[in-house]
Amino acid sequence: MFYFLRHIQRSAVRILNSHTVEPVKCLQQVKHVHTGQNCMKTWNLGKLNHVALVTPDLDKSAALYRDVLKGKVSSKQALPEHGVTVVFVQLGEAKIELLQPLGENSPVQSFLNKNKSGGMHHICIEVDDIQEAIKDFKKNKIRILSEEPKIGAHGKPVVFLHPKDCDGVLIEIEQA
Amino acid sequence: MFYFLRHIQRSAVRILNSHTVEPVKCLQQVKHVHTGQNCMKTWNLGKLNHVALVTPDLDKSAALYRDVLKGKVSSKQALPEHGVTVVFVQLGEAKIELLQPLGENSPVQSFLNKNKSGGMHHICIEVDDIQEAIKDFKKNKIRILSEEPKIGAHGKPVVFLHPKDCDGVLIEIEQA
Repeated sequence: MFYFLRHIQRSAVRILNSHTVEPVKCLQQVKHVHTGQNCMKTWNLGKLNHVALVTPDLDKSAALYRDVLKGKVSSKQALPEHGVTVVFVQLGEAKIELLQPLGENSPVQSFLNKNKSGGMHHICIEVDDIQEAIKDFKKNKIRILSEEPKIGAHGKPVVFLHPKDCDGVLIEIEQA
Repeated sequence: MFYFLRHIQRSAVRILNSHTVEPVKCLQQVKHVHTGQNCMKTWNLGKLNHVALVTPDLDKSAALYRDVLKGKVSSKQALPEHGVTVVFVQLGEAKIELLQPLGENSPVQSFLNKNKSGGMHHICIEVDDIQEAIKDFKKNKIRILSEEPKIGAHGKPVVFLHPKDCDGVLIEIEQA
């Protein structure tokens, strides 16, 4: 009786094991059809986090989005470690970030020198595993503007992809 | 007894009426604090609908967002009435729209002439009443690129705001 029960238990474990592996494989295959890859996905792209606009006059831009466009506009926040002063405009689950150079070596000053009236600077998209995403970017010869992720304006690791490898668009990738 | 009940009923209606008006006023006042206006709001800004990127090679750009960035990427759609071929990349509730000029008079050809590698073209934000929004834009001296709303790529009325009045950024406003 004991042997019979143990036999059933072992068979059940074998059946369970065979079934817990298979459905996962199938789910992954379905999930990956659109990527053109075969079960190699180790990270996922998330939502559009923000669009960053650079402006020569942050107060004027904030007034446009607050008083004319009637958006939910934050107060100004100086981020000296990022070389910008920023105002956030919440638009559903995404944001516009209005950036004005701050300090001597602001990363957005050269953009403003070329675009005196301001303009669209970059987009930021979330990923669920930035380290795995970086491995894939490197495999695909997408240049990354820093060796390692840095801590971005939201306190999370970020990297920037080279615009020359992204059809002229500066893309920030942020750990969700 | 009947008179008494009717009296109570009439009093209740008066109380209800006085209370159904008041809370709405208060809600509006709270809602409008950030606009600097006083209960004059007749429309609301909604979510960021999309960021439009113009590319010289739509297949290559679609492959970047699908195969490298692992996004949910649509098939190509020719929109000859808008002078573009478009691919949509869904990123949460917002989208990236990859645009390539189509036909002789594409509205994005001059952008591509100036930005050979492609780049960020415009952002699109939703409103719940585009006609009321347009009245406010005009009051605030924001130039609109067409006299009346046109039907956009999503089959809904849209207008574009002049980038010179929006700190160098082309803003599309779409009826939600």
